[in-house]
Amino acid sequence: MASNSFGDIFRFTSFGESHGRALGVVIDGCPAGISLDEDDFVPELQRRRPGQSSVTTSRNEADSPELLAGTFEGVTTGMPIALIVRNENQRSGDYESLRGTHRPGHADATYAGKYGHRDHRGGGRSSGRETVARVMAGVVARRILPQATRVLAHAKVIGPHEATEYLPETIEQNVVRCADPSAAALMEEHILALKAAGDSVGGLVEILVTDPPPYLGDPVFRKLKSRLADAVMSVGAVTGFSYGRGFETARLQGLDYVSDSANFGGLSGGISSGETIRLQASIKPTTSVADVARRGRHDPCIVPRVIPVLEAMVACTLADALLMQRALSG
Amino acid sequence: MASNSFGDIFRFTSFGESHGRALGVVIDGCPAGISLDEDDFVPELQRRRPGQSSVTTSRNEADSPELLAGTFEGVTTGMPIALIVRNENQRSGDYESLRGTHRPGHADATYAGKYGHRDHRGGGRSSGRETVARVMAGVVARRILPQATRVLAHAKVIGPHEATEYLPETIEQNVVRCADPSAAALMEEHILALKAAGDSVGGLVEILVTDPPPYLGDPVFRKLKSRLADAVMSVGAVTGFSYGRGFETARLQGLDYVSDSANFGGLSGGISSGETIRLQASIKPTTSVADVARRGRHDPCIVPRVIPVLEAMVACTLADALLMQRALSG
Amino acid sequence: MASNSFGDIFRFTSFGESHGRALGVVIDGCPAGISLDEDDFVPELQRRRPGQSSVTTSRNEADSPELLAGTFEGVTTGMPIALIVRNENQRSGDYESLRGTHRPGHADATYAGKYGHRDHRGGGRSSGRETVARVMAGVVARRILPQATRVLAHAKVIGPHEATEYLPETIEQNVVRCADPSAAALMEEHILALKAAGDSVGGLVEILVTDPPPYLGDPVFRKLKSRLADAVMSVGAVTGFSYGRGFETARLQGLDYVSDSANFGGLSGGISSGETIRLQASIKPTTSVADVARRGRHDPCIVPRVIPVLEAMVACTLADALLMQRALSG
Amino acid sequence: MASNSFGDIFRFTSFGESHGRALGVVIDGCPAGISLDEDDFVPELQRRRPGQSSVTTSRNEADSPELLAGTFEGVTTGMPIALIVRNENQRSGDYESLRGTHRPGHADATYAGKYGHRDHRGGGRSSGRETVARVMAGVVARRILPQATRVLAHAKVIGPHEATEYLPETIEQNVVRCADPSAAALMEEHILALKAAGDSVGGLVEILVTDPPPYLGDPVFRKLKSRLADAVMSVGAVTGFSYGRGFETARLQGLDYVSDSANFGGLSGGISSGETIRLQASIKPTTSVADVARRGRHDPCIVPRVIPVLEAMVACTLADALLMQRALSG
Repeated sequence: MASNSFGDIFRFTSFGESHGRALGVVIDGCPAGISLDEDDFVPELQRRRPGQSSVTTSRNEADSPELLAGTFEGVTTGMPIALIVRNENQRSGDYESLRGTHRPGHADATYAGKYGHRDHRGGGRSSGRETVARVMAGVVARRILPQATRVLAHAKVIGPHEATEYLPETIEQNVVRCADPSAAALMEEHILALKAAGDSVGGLVEILVTDPPPYLGDPVFRKLKSRLADAVMSVGAVTGFSYGRGFETARLQGLDYVSDSANFGGLSGGISSGETIRLQASIKPTTSVADVARRGRHDPCIVPRVIPVLEAMVACTLADALLMQRALSG
Repeated sequence: MASNSFGDIFRFTSFGESHGRALGVVIDGCPAGISLDEDDFVPELQRRRPGQSSVTTSRNEADSPELLAGTFEGVTTGMPIALIVRNENQRSGDYESLRGTHRPGHADATYAGKYGHRDHRGGGRSSGRETVARVMAGVVARRILPQATRVLAHAKVIGPHEATEYLPETIEQNVVRCADPSAAALMEEHILALKAAGDSVGGLVEILVTDPPPYLGDPVFRKLKSRLADAVMSVGAVTGFSYGRGFETARLQGLDYVSDSANFGGLSGGISSGETIRLQASIKPTTSVADVARRGRHDPCIVPRVIPVLEAMVACTLADALLMQRALSG
Repeated sequence: MASNSFGDIFRFTSFGESHGRALGVVIDGCPAGISLDEDDFVPELQRRRPGQSSVTTSRNEADSPELLAGTFEGVTTGMPIALIVRNENQRSGDYESLRGTHRPGHADATYAGKYGHRDHRGGGRSSGRETVARVMAGVVARRILPQATRVLAHAKVIGPHEATEYLPETIEQNVVRCADPSAAALMEEHILALKAAGDSVGGLVEILVTDPPPYLGDPVFRKLKSRLADAVMSVGAVTGFSYGRGFETARLQGLDYVSDSANFGGLSGGISSGETIRLQASIKPTTSVADVARRGRHDPCIVPRVIPVLEAMVACTLADALLMQRALSG
Repeated sequence: MASNSFGDIFRFTSFGESHGRALGVVIDGCPAGISLDEDDFVPELQRRRPGQSSVTTSRNEADSPELLAGTFEGVTTGMPIALIVRNENQRSGDYESLRGTHRPGHADATYAGKYGHRDHRGGGRSSGRETVARVMAGVVARRILPQATRVLAHAKVIGPHEATEYLPETIEQNVVRCADPSAAALMEEHILALKAAGDSVGGLVEILVTDPPPYLGDPVFRKLKSRLADAVMSVGAVTGFSYGRGFETARLQGLDYVSDSANFGGLSGGISSGETIRLQASIKPTTSVADVARRGRHDPCIVPRVIPVLEAMVACTLADALLMQRALSG
């Protein structure tokens, strides 16, 4: 229900097509009294934006947010916060040839089957451009979380290259958003070579939440782990979600596993324990490859751009769980 | 919200503690006119039940379902379906020593912190026994799905052993629920050795949905892939979820990936395409190990028992998505 | 969705047919730490029960609640609270003749048209007996409200007779639950005369909430006034809802109206102001009249029995709004 | 939850303040394939607009809708439909003196108490201007309903004057939207006299749904009657809701009541029977009276302007119930 909304109390609704007039978001359930300005959205929109580097598409999106509602004199009022970002530079002619075409690995065929009538230009709602709404919601969500809490993601694996160091301050210093500068260089080189060949590559993103509030999530169906899975898997290119030791647990033994609480990834009984939450998301290679890749404007590796989106979704999930926790622990 | 309920239209609510009077489920949003009897729940409750084999706990649960409401003359009426299973053979004395103890890797400490007051006996709601409710909901969900659709899970990996064959008819013929009889034998042996040592082991379950209805799930936040992730991750021991090639996609290249639609796991744009849906869930080793394992009644490997539960959760997710699909494609 | 559930955070789910095995309720979202025992439900179930007086049906319902889950050592745990009441003394033979009959003014024809297959015995889910679930939820809801808050309803009008005094301590001292003893005597006499004639009569119930928490309800679509309307109108026999001066406001002038805040009924902008909340519900005459009334067991006036149910629904609405208020005013 | 959204499947979210940048609505859950254009919203926005007549405020709102998302080539795509209407001609200086003032009978004091920080200009979200969003949602809702279904409201009572004829084609021919031309003249005269005196008056609106789909609504908590009550009571000035014979049922006897199915107002067991649905809403007198009325721009009688809003809310409720009905009757 309400398939374009996310969250229970802190709930946002995303709208807009990649080649329509505007993208936007309405955020309902944000407490009053939080300082918030139009400019606060610019940095995250910049981080999400393509055209920033050699490894992302050259589509030039200005992405100026317009704050339509929900604040008064720079402070939230408890009323719904609405933001839009106008689409510019559409060049939708690029996509005219796709009207009857269903690209493999895209939503094209399923949308066509499900809805009959669809906006074929640039993926419509299935476009990565929809994530503009998520990133804006994430900005608000972070303001609800305690100041000490940080949600930070980085590229752990891209193709054959894996980060072995974790230097968080270097993440934004390289185009792949990797916390290991040497691995970052190899990753970038790898992506550029694939791009030249009309190919693409996947990756693995690790998301860390340091100093999270404890006791977020509920025991059975709103476990924090399942809500985070829902949040992370809702992002287009994500093919897998895990926490703590994740898929390695398939081969672990219990005595080993319980010997180090870091294995639990900050979640006990599915609820946050207060320790660092450690999540992983696997990302598929961009499916716009070969001729399609050459004609359109597509990233050969979506990992760097998906990172701010994953952070936003995790922040929204935590903010919502925090408000629910307040409701039931009066 | 409603953290003990799952689903939007086909929605079930689970209740009951492992050592309380009864476990139960209320299923709201089941169409009228479906043939349903008390006895229909017995086979799946039997599959879920511990004490069936050498590798599961010896706790003897009779698990007789009592159908309290929602059918008339053996057919559903559109009214809520309610079922309870009485708890017997509690031996709660076994757990009295745990009153002030928080077992590592369990929900004990987070529940205590979150709620202050808790039922410490056998995990209360965090017990695997809660899954009785899910399995009963799954029985009803399967009746809503098309007859051709099958939801079938099996043990793919347990510790160092991995199935290399897929013979679905053999799954229920071995205690680990593996579709490869030779691997099954090794898995069983491995579990028994660990049990003797007071240790435990994790595993990987693969869930296949053959002949699923196409076009289930919605584009943005109710993608079938994110709903399935939510469903699967809501099960206690699950540490990771993926579909198609899952975490392998981190290292794949686009041209390879798009060359075989089986890589997409039956989901395009997050929506079912009609092809077989292929999901994976990683399971952590039981955390009741060493002395705890010897005193209580715990499985050294939870994989065989989690299989009917995962099938049930997947069936419920699909049934709910199918009803939603009907709503919007009149 | 989830049409047998009510509430957002404090959310209860009702199940069971009037002539099935049991009625029951599952209450999700009740905070931990509230003292609660099986016996706490008995007084309200007694108040709701028919067969208490000359003006209500002689059906003898023992209505013993069984608390299946959600408390430990007499205190809530934050887990779902589940209660059932077994049906006894069904005499369903009384209703066999109704199998193909649709009683005018009942749900019979609409249920038959909507569901095809239905439990025709005694109304099934549309029976007043379903309110057992609501009354039990109301008991829990009242424990969440501040101790000073009281929810109290009384018969204001029955047929031609209207209460002109308000002596709340007399409400439970007469069979019609009227706060004016002289009017109560006339009302009772009137009902008995109609009963003898195989006829029935409607009435008007006033519900007062004294010392309510202020600021409950939200500005636009979860106004307290609309949530209360939803709650009150969900009760079978209710044909109208109003607050403050209600339908009289159609003929009032603004200068008069604003001169006395009592006219606002405790709600400003749809949100509780902290002043006494004053609500009205109109009740239709029982539609089981003439021959039907003589054959079955029906109340000639439903007003006395609907009073505890309306109180319960109002208490549940306030408890839910209070928890939501906590979520957003951390 | 999501207190600015209405509906379960057909779900719309309202945003924007009366003196902010824009009002808007996002409509989620509208089926694909419905013809829809920006211009389709103009007539209903015109009907809702003040400044149309001698009895409504002279505030001049252009109210040009901008359709931002959800259609492609003039047809809905199943994606969220987003619309905004820019605010112009704000004259917010008019309201500056209200910064610290709480007008009696307004939301001012409760908002201030609930949120601390609020937009005091013209009521912010509690302004009648918010209903722009509802009216736009209603336009889409009507397209989902069968073509034969009509939702039509009219002024039944204003102060001492009551319509005694029902000539629906005359409703839009008089400024009070009354279906009885002679009563309309008296109503208008009455309002103008009160306006001159700085006073105001309430009224009663009747809403008729002819040829509604049968079997809408659910048995217990999503009865159509309670959903309609929620919808109608969510409108600012409404103080009461009823259906069929409404509050008159308090004095009716059963044999009379069941003798004419028109008394049931088109709802049996709370579910639509297919007969005409007849609803009533009582409207309070505008509370901006005396000096306040002279300084601001306020309607001396809100009834004519509330009529398109009530129609919109009823249409949205029916559309949502219709989609739910489809889900469960596959």
